Amino acid sequence: MVRIIMHGCNGKMGQVITRMAAEDKECEIVAGIDTCEGRLNGYPVFDSLQDCDVEADVVIDFSNAKAVDGLLENCKKRRLPVVLCTTGLSKEQIQKVEDTAKETAVLKSANMSLGINLLMRLLQDAAKVLSPAGYDIEIVEKHHNKKVDAPSGTALALADAINETQDMKYAYSYDRSQERKPREKQEIGISAVRGGTIVGEHEVLFAGEDEVIEFKHTAYSKAVFAKGALEAAKFLAGKPAGKYDMSDVISF
Amino acid sequence: MVRIIMHGCNGKMGQVITRMAAEDKECEIVAGIDTCEGRLNGYPVFDSLQDCDVEADVVIDFSNAKAVDGLLENCKKRRLPVVLCTTGLSKEQIQKVEDTAKETAVLKSANMSLGINLLMRLLQDAAKVLSPAGYDIEIVEKHHNKKVDAPSGTALALADAINETQDMKYAYSYDRSQERKPREKQEIGISAVRGGTIVGEHEVLFAGEDEVIEFKHTAYSKAVFAKGALEAAKFLAGKPAGKYDMSDVISF
Amino acid sequence: MVRIIMHGCNGKMGQVITRMAAEDKECEIVAGIDTCEGRLNGYPVFDSLQDCDVEADVVIDFSNAKAVDGLLENCKKRRLPVVLCTTGLSKEQIQKVEDTAKETAVLKSANMSLGINLLMRLLQDAAKVLSPAGYDIEIVEKHHNKKVDAPSGTALALADAINETQDMKYAYSYDRSQERKPREKQEIGISAVRGGTIVGEHEVLFAGEDEVIEFKHTAYSKAVFAKGALEAAKFLAGKPAGKYDMSDVISF
Amino acid sequence: MVRIIMHGCNGKMGQVITRMAAEDKECEIVAGIDTCEGRLNGYPVFDSLQDCDVEADVVIDFSNAKAVDGLLENCKKRRLPVVLCTTGLSKEQIQKVEDTAKETAVLKSANMSLGINLLMRLLQDAAKVLSPAGYDIEIVEKHHNKKVDAPSGTALALADAINETQDMKYAYSYDRSQERKPREKQEIGISAVRGGTIVGEHEVLFAGEDEVIEFKHTAYSKAVFAKGALEAAKFLAGKPAGKYDMSDVISF
Repeated sequence: MVRIIMHGCNGKMGQVITRMAAEDKECEIVAGIDTCEGRLNGYPVFDSLQDCDVEADVVIDFSNAKAVDGLLENCKKRRLPVVLCTTGLSKEQIQKVEDTAKETAVLKSANMSLGINLLMRLLQDAAKVLSPAGYDIEIVEKHHNKKVDAPSGTALALADAINETQDMKYAYSYDRSQERKPREKQEIGISAVRGGTIVGEHEVLFAGEDEVIEFKHTAYSKAVFAKGALEAAKFLAGKPAGKYDMSDVISF
Repeated sequence: MVRIIMHGCNGKMGQVITRMAAEDKECEIVAGIDTCEGRLNGYPVFDSLQDCDVEADVVIDFSNAKAVDGLLENCKKRRLPVVLCTTGLSKEQIQKVEDTAKETAVLKSANMSLGINLLMRLLQDAAKVLSPAGYDIEIVEKHHNKKVDAPSGTALALADAINETQDMKYAYSYDRSQERKPREKQEIGISAVRGGTIVGEHEVLFAGEDEVIEFKHTAYSKAVFAKGALEAAKFLAGKPAGKYDMSDVISF
Repeated sequence: MVRIIMHGCNGKMGQVITRMAAEDKECEIVAGIDTCEGRLNGYPVFDSLQDCDVEADVVIDFSNAKAVDGLLENCKKRRLPVVLCTTGLSKEQIQKVEDTAKETAVLKSANMSLGINLLMRLLQDAAKVLSPAGYDIEIVEKHHNKKVDAPSGTALALADAINETQDMKYAYSYDRSQERKPREKQEIGISAVRGGTIVGEHEVLFAGEDEVIEFKHTAYSKAVFAKGALEAAKFLAGKPAGKYDMSDVISF
Repeated sequence: MVRIIMHGCNGKMGQVITRMAAEDKECEIVAGIDTCEGRLNGYPVFDSLQDCDVEADVVIDFSNAKAVDGLLENCKKRRLPVVLCTTGLSKEQIQKVEDTAKETAVLKSANMSLGINLLMRLLQDAAKVLSPAGYDIEIVEKHHNKKVDAPSGTALALADAINETQDMKYAYSYDRSQERKPREKQEIGISAVRGGTIVGEHEVLFAGEDEVIEFKHTAYSKAVFAKGALEAAKFLAGKPAGKYDMSDVISF
């Protein structure tokens, strides 16, 4: 049973993780850290990790940049592994992450979704087989109508993951309406659909002769990041000092 | 039982229609017209409609522009309804179509697929309900890697059909990668995916608050045009002189 | 501007509607009714409709069966149209609905989703065209792993809607693994997929010769019922006494 | 450049492979074997492999059971690798395959599609990650209305592939309409959709908390088997004696 301290337990993500952990037989939250009150969590809540004397195997952090300094210092001191999900860290803080990783296991990842990280790995394997066999690769992503950037960072990360496995570089094509010519072999078309409140959908196609193979990831809420953090915590407990990311969690 | 003369019976589409008609209890091909030989059709084949004295209710034409003049003259003379699927007609021939339609029923349509024509009608109804309720509309089409134009003519026709029903005009957006801003309400995003040998796939989305409604048409071969022609023939038999198109075939 | 009284404004659905109405230019919530407190709604909240003297065009009700008696009586007295979304009414209450509808407009529907109700109408039109043309109809629905019934009530409602439009009755087929025979023409296969936390997905296919037409509805949350209620309220304002349902809201 | 002898070159699959090989820069067909005539192949055609003195690296066989005996004997004698795609072999012939594999490389596989075989491998990897993390697995397959068995052999093969990788056995569930209970953790639901002329579609879902990951394979024609055979031939050329199958062709 992996014992978790939930850093930022009373925030939105902290609450989702609390609920998920309660249904997970392989781990339990033994303490929470938050300065906000007013939640019934079923575990003791402390103002800071320093104040928390509960023994644990790993910390999950979904707090805010301001709280990260104290967190890292304490994890380093206690050699407590930490899954660091807070974003928007300063340069100094990123350096502090590196320092902390010399003393304990630190996991930090651009995208905490288990599904997306798994997809990246599988797409690389698929590309190794299908790309030399002449299959064309295309990506379609769908997001809500408030999203200002296109294509999504995740769509680009998926394309980049494919490119990392191939000898030759695929170029990315975002618009085909301005030209009249057949598709180039060395391109990945990336289309961005926007509408309503779609949380996030990513579809990667490999199209060959009379055959299409599709990989599709649909997120229905940000709970996918909570799930990923929980799996990361179970993975990180007991690991030696060093920097880890979500791709390490995925072992075939 | 609708009696059909298949004009261009030994061509690719003529053969598909021959096979389909054999399984259709509401119609039968009573004669074929073709100058090419070498097919066992189970019905008599003549060199031209003029030579064919078999009585029939309607002609389906999938021949070539050269053969259309004789066809139209004979249909006009015999007041024989005709489903005209040959494309690439000259101005003079299009005038001849108009003249013929004064004496007999002539059906001609930009897209002979029953499914696509039905979709156009349903999209208009959907837009009447969902557009005022604030749903965003997006289109994704997928075709083979040899196709030189994007988006497909059918994708544009679907978007145009929606625009015809609304008071306000939607603009079409083909590329969102060059700007950083939320989606405009008055736009339809149209994405073109290209790969492998995909025959043709069209997907129209209406995305609202936590809800997506999708309409999708997939063609697996050009047989969809054969099917449409057959339904058009059954519809046209017995109709008064005039010009018709596929939207007339679709009656709710 | 349609003026709405939100009956049950501090419940989950009441709050979703409050948020949606704030972004809708065609309506506004002018008052709320709830005995629970603790929400900042931007409109006055009363304990009961009787206590509320704010003028309005329509009431939306998402409360509980106990509160419905007072609601109906007051709506009847004030001739105030009401969109009744509370479920689990007793026989006596359903009779009271009938009585109320003699004096004012009452809208009540098995499924409040605008999208599902629209889909029912469009499927009927599609079936009128595609069923005589020999297309096979299949339904696939997907829901979370806690759902105990299969297929979903909505899947059956979609199939029933199709059956209402056809002369002949389709039988429903739920399992094909126990027999070895080709598909029957007069059946609709209904498949139930269960997994994770999928809120609700319904897909209806019409499969013909080398062609598939799909209609798909995806709900990402119960907000779809809120949206439907809001559209229903805008429709009902100013309507004469009588019983209405969601299909009336959908006018092409 | 891999030099191929196409055994059964004038049959349907032989012709598809001929066309595909012409566009493939890594291989070429240097000779064909067929007793039927009347095709312009651009390479010499012989009555039997014995009569064919053209040097080659590998044979692709899409002929018939009767022709397989001579084929195997000659491959064995010449130590010529062979991709054996003819089905319906007798027990004696299967023994002959084993004997031949002692002298030369023989590749034989239940399903020749590269995509399906790749999918099997990727599903195993996905299951290793997602199954312990609590994701539910479901399969939906779609085929034409003439298919008599359900679910498809390929759907079962995909499920079996998943089961081979897990410690615990998933049971397969084909019908949920006869019971009222939540989904069992240890089951894979397999749904069979039938309609029109759908060639073959297989979709495997992993559904977790607010997340769905889908793998989908669509075949538009039997050309997918031709493609797989060609890739198999390129793989097999130069390999040592032994038995191989399509999973060997897929190397990450």
